[in-house]
Formats: sequence, structure tokens, C-alpha cells
Amino acid sequence: MLSSTTTKGLLLIGDGMGDRAVPALGGKTPLEAANTPIMDRCAAEGESGHMDPIAPGIRAGSDTAHLAMLGYDPYQVYPGRGPFECFGIGMEVQPGDLAFRFNFATVDENFTVLDRRAGRITKGTDRLAAAIDGMQVQDVLILAKESVAHRGGMVMRGPGLHTKISEADPHAEGLKVLEVQALSPEAEKTALVCNEVIRRSYDILNDHPINRERVAQSLPPANILLPRGAGFAPNLGLFSDRYGITGACIVEVGLVKGIGRYIGMDVIDVIGSTANVETDTVAIGNAVIEALGRHPFVLCNVKGPDVAGHDCNPQGKIRIIEKIDAMLGQILDGVENLTVAVTGDHCTPVTFGDHTGEPVPILFHGPTVRPDGVQSFGERAATLGSVHRIQGKDVMNIMTSYMGTAEKFGA
Amino acid sequence: MLSSTTTKGLLLIGDGMGDRAVPALGGKTPLEAANTPIMDRCAAEGESGHMDPIAPGIRAGSDTAHLAMLGYDPYQVYPGRGPFECFGIGMEVQPGDLAFRFNFATVDENFTVLDRRAGRITKGTDRLAAAIDGMQVQDVLILAKESVAHRGGMVMRGPGLHTKISEADPHAEGLKVLEVQALSPEAEKTALVCNEVIRRSYDILNDHPINRERVAQSLPPANILLPRGAGFAPNLGLFSDRYGITGACIVEVGLVKGIGRYIGMDVIDVIGSTANVETDTVAIGNAVIEALGRHPFVLCNVKGPDVAGHDCNPQGKIRIIEKIDAMLGQILDGVENLTVAVTGDHCTPVTFGDHTGEPVPILFHGPTVRPDGVQSFGERAATLGSVHRIQGKDVMNIMTSYMGTAEKFGA
Repeated sequence: MLSSTTTKGLLLIGDGMGDRAVPALGGKTPLEAANTPIMDRCAAEGESGHMDPIAPGIRAGSDTAHLAMLGYDPYQVYPGRGPFECFGIGMEVQPGDLAFRFNFATVDENFTVLDRRAGRITKGTDRLAAAIDGMQVQDVLILAKESVAHRGGMVMRGPGLHTKISEADPHAEGLKVLEVQALSPEAEKTALVCNEVIRRSYDILNDHPINRERVAQSLPPANILLPRGAGFAPNLGLFSDRYGITGACIVEVGLVKGIGRYIGMDVIDVIGSTANVETDTVAIGNAVIEALGRHPFVLCNVKGPDVAGHDCNPQGKIRIIEKIDAMLGQILDGVENLTVAVTGDHCTPVTFGDHTGEPVPILFHGPTVRPDGVQSFGERAATLGSVHRIQGKDVMNIMTSYMGTAEKFGA
Repeated sequence: MLSSTTTKGLLLIGDGMGDRAVPALGGKTPLEAANTPIMDRCAAEGESGHMDPIAPGIRAGSDTAHLAMLGYDPYQVYPGRGPFECFGIGMEVQPGDLAFRFNFATVDENFTVLDRRAGRITKGTDRLAAAIDGMQVQDVLILAKESVAHRGGMVMRGPGLHTKISEADPHAEGLKVLEVQALSPEAEKTALVCNEVIRRSYDILNDHPINRERVAQSLPPANILLPRGAGFAPNLGLFSDRYGITGACIVEVGLVKGIGRYIGMDVIDVIGSTANVETDTVAIGNAVIEALGRHPFVLCNVKGPDVAGHDCNPQGKIRIIEKIDAMLGQILDGVENLTVAVTGDHCTPVTFGDHTGEPVPILFHGPTVRPDGVQSFGERAATLGSVHRIQGKDVMNIMTSYMGTAEKFGA
């Protein structure tokens, strides 16, 4: 009778927010040490527990963790780094595209590699990639786009492609670029296209104005493109088909933006979002409020805790967690009838400086959530919560059940 | 930044250590009733919870439980008893071998079974098995080795073999040995080889000096070999390929030694290790310390708690658990920078006398483990720990994440 009642939903991710006991914080974690009155109130009014992004002990990346939390099994759909690199830099990848990462490198006229990273070039790669972008080899369209420094993403779109090819990069300077070989008979066309792209990239790039200028400045020219990490873009379907609601993505991780765009979410960029601890969480909060006016669901990721974790910076991690807490208060004040889940996509302990495999604390809060008696939000407080220990793949199902938008399975 | 920090790792299994409430112990379990100051300190400094070796409620064997804890899905890789019997008695099984268990039995000259267990023969089976070992049937090599009493393991190595064959054992005395039948067309060669092995085993064994002596003593001769439980040895790969580190096995269960050897672990035998409650845990502890000097990881299994469980002997179980506790103290004193997991491979309640399906308590302790507030180690104390309820397959992933040796999945 009341089953048509639904709420809005916000999945709020502090990237890398989970942590270990930090001696400099008296054995607390940054989340435990931070002053987080809003999250604590949400925990007191809601339920909490632990969440393994992928599975217990698995050191998740942000990409695989977000895939899991959006309901995809990363072991099934994660096709290697190529497609996700291309998603991350905003390329319009389509299911079935064969996607690569590539390096700009420096070769001499005999294709001997002089510098595998073209002097770690930082400027002009947008114009170099644009000179390759749109190349046609046989019936295969080549798309290319720069990433950070000497890196980029390349997409092959056309029939008869395959992933099983050998590498072009000899992985050492002074050696010649390797002829890409088909590692299975179906990959012969792909190897041929790859070799043609590499050869023609030299013809196009070696004399490019950006490289003429670099040579004039005694910098190694970025005069060849060396692709690797070939993987087919997976068929993930649409978020709206999977959950029956539309969703927006307000996230500070390029890879996650790419995933959101790929599954048809409304990816919203925020001015002032800097993906570090200095980011403008007020602006992000306003964007979330605004997006929840147009969509039943928003995925919001604030990158700062992960940055501070990689930097082994407990105080920075505390500061950005406190900013996220204030932002959550702002959103709760600005949106009525909201179900919120607050968690991280993995731990990035400030004592370790990289992702680790512990579960992260998670809380669910909203008008339909039954309070479990836990009074604050943190790694240890969550131990006694009624969520116990769930996995990333469970998060959206729990969210949409609380939101009242989930389909019943069975009669 | 600090991510290159790693620790050594020890997975310490009290075989069958988990238990139920024992009336004779005032309702405590043997682990709860035992004086275990070291495990209690490790729990207080670490985290604990419950672990289902395979899945909730599943009554695990030591073989399937250790497979799961080493990261293999026993439902995928456990090929029946044949291969694991052969592992357990130290046969050099190779992936792809077709492996069997067998009984030595007694037949008359018409192959009528007079005793399916050859009078439960205890002596001389090594010489009888050796008389079969190395037999060649067509292009198939036959390996045979004795196990306890009338039992043994047999391996067929050659092309074109298959598991789908009927049994030779008529499962009743007074009936003739059955002709082994192919249960699918691909198994015709295997059935033929089996029948040939059975026939020739009679020719070889009936007149064997061991059997001439038995007949002289009015004992039934072990004059035929009846194989069963055919299964292909699974392709498990190498421990070192799976985890990127080498590992040693110091274990008191033959089957687990066999698994360790099969996946390329360094299987170390310890003088004084007796696989019962009287075992020399000081010698085992010293061997663990020594092995951790050469390997990043050691799996140690002490069999006594399971023996006491099967014997329905609560005091014996308490005694061996206290010896394991002291051994853990010895190891912690002898090895710096160590991550330890302590658990059982299943419950063997002293009130039941066999394996049961409850989860077992587990604790993780080490420099990177976040204490969860639990103050002692035991079935009930573990209920409030931050590990909650994991499965055997999670154990090595959690271990290697804490050790700092696990690979990240994604970016």
C-alpha cells in the first residue's frame, strides 16, 4: 500500500577513506580522529558495518571498486588497463572498441628507441594526439587522446579486431621498436593495423611543429606512438536499465567519470573540484543537491582522502574528511527524503601510502533505515553495526531497497 | 610512499581446533577453557572473527579446507579422493595424471572376493605395492604405493585416459570381481587398462613371498588390487606464481603435505612431529622460525586438536591447544616483523567426534593489523571482532594484504 514511497539516494565515497591505526594519532585512524558530527549522527540514526569493495583482502583500485559498487563483477568485466585508461581521459569509447594505453616515445630514423617516454614530455601532447586522432587504417578508425605526461589512450574501432598481440615497446632504450605479432590467427589484422599505426605515427609526428620545437630546444621529440594493454571495451549496459532510475556522477576520479559516462550516467563537472585535499567541497555539495533535483540517484566521490593517504599525510586526510562531513551536512540540509550511504572505495592507509585490502566502514542513513545502536562512524565503531561485513556488489542493492526503487526478485 | 614495507607471514592451523560448548568444561569450548595467554594477547593486539573453511555449514575435510585457505575453490579443483590419497602418501603426482585409491583384497583363482580388505593387512604392503609400481599397460605407466593398512594409491600416466568407469569392487564378499566398464565412449581405454592392471596384479601378487608367508600363517593373501575413486590430478599452478612469494609447509597431515608439495611449497618434515597431542611443538616451532628465515610465508598445521576431537577427549584437546599457544609465543619471540593468522581448518567437537560445519575462530596479528578491541581468542570472543565472518578462500588474500605482498587489482 505504501510501496510506491521512494526516496532519493546518494552514494558518497571518500576515496581511499579507510585506514589503519596511526601511531601519530594515538592509534586512531584519520576517520576516527576527525571531527565528524554529521557522519556520527548519521551512524547513530542509521546502521553501519564493514564493506569489502571486491572481496576480503583484495587490494582494490578505484576503477575496480567503483565497478563493483555499481553492481558489476570486476573479474568479469575489467578488461585490463587499456579501455579504462581511455574512459578515464574522456574518450568516447563504445562497447566492442579495442582500446589501448600508449606512450609517446622517441626513436631515431631506424626506429631505435632513444627514450621510451619522450623525455617525460608535459606539453603539446594534445596537439600530437590530435594529429593521430581520426586516422583510418583499412576499415579501422583510430582515435587517440593524450593523458598525463607521455601517456595517452588509443581506440581501434572496426571489424575483425582481437586482443592477442605482442608488444611493440622493447622495454629498453637502444633497441628497435618491435614488430607487433599476432599471438593467435584471429589477431593478424590487429597486428597489421597496429604496425601501420606505429609506422604512420612516426611519419606524422617526427616532423610535427611541436617536435621541431622540442628538437630546437634539445628535447627528445615525441615522434612515435607505442600502444599496449589492448582490451575490448566491455558491454556494461546502462545504469538506468540496471536500476530503473537515472543517476548522476559527481566524481573527482577520471577513471570513474569514464565509467559513469560509459554506463549513461549524467557526469557533472564542478568548478573548484581539484581532486585533492584543497578541493571545494561546498561547490561539490551544491552540485550534488542540484543533481538530486534532477535525478533519483547521485554517486559522489571526493578524491582527497586517497591523495592524503598516498602522501602519508594524516593531518591532510583528517582535514578533507572533516570537509566531506560538512558537505554531507550541507546536502542533508538541502535535500529532503534522502537515503545516504557513506563509505570509501578502499583503504589507503597513511602508514602504507597505497591501497590495502581491509574493508572500509560504511553507513546507511535515511527515512527507511533501522538504527542499530552504533553511535559514531569509524573503522572500529562500525564493527558492532548491523551491516556486519558486506561487499561492494551489495551496496547498490541495499541502497535501492532502502530507496524503495528496487525490483522484487520472485513473487 | 611506504608501500614497499613487507612482513613475513605465518598461517598457523590448529587442526580441528574449533569446538562446541562442552558440558564437562562448564559449557566452554576447549579453546575457551585452555590457558592461552599468547593467543589472547594476539587477539587483543589484532583482530578476530569467524571463518567458514568452505562455506557456512559445510563440514570441511582437512584437504578441502586447506585447499580453500590456500586460495583454491575445492568445488572446482577437488577431483575426488583418488588424487588426494596419492598426494597424501607422497606419490609424485603430476597434473593430468589419473589417480585412484585402491584396496588390497583377497580373491580365489576364479576372482571371487574372499576378503575385500585382505584381512586388514598391516605389514608388507610396501613390498606388494612396489611389485606393481612401474607396470606398463599399452602406453600407460602405472604407479602404486601403499597407504595405511589395506589401502593404497595408484596413478595412471599416459594419453587418452578418462574418469568415467565403473567399479571393480563388488562391495560384498562371495561375489566375483567386476569387469570395469567404460561409462562413456572416451573411457574405453581406461577401462581396458584397469582390467589389465587388476588381472596382472593377481598374477604378480598371488605368488609373492609376502603372500606365501601370509597363507602359511593362515592369513588371507593380499593378492589383488581393486582401484576406485578415479580423478584427474588438477592443475593448481604454483603457490609462488599465485602469491608472488615462496612458502614452506610444516604440517602434520599427509594430505596437506601432498597439496603443499604439489603446488611447489617447501615441505619440511620435523623430527618429533607425531601428529597427535604428544607431538613436539617446540621442535615444530623451531622449524617454523628456521623456515621463516628462508621464506616469506609458512603454513603450519598441528594435528593434535583434531585427534583429540575425534577421540572425544576435551582434556587432550586443551593440552595440545596450550602447547600450540606456547609454540606461538616461541615463534613470536624468534621472528621479527611477522603477520600471523591463527585458526583451525574446521571444527572437530569433542562432543561429536568428527568434523562439523560451524565456522572456526580466526585472529590476525601483526604490525599492520588494526586492533579491534576483542581481548581474548575463542569461539565466542571472536563474535565481536572486526573480521566478522569470512571464508577460507579469503584467508591468504587478507594475509598477503597485511604482509604488503599482494598485488593491487585495478588502478
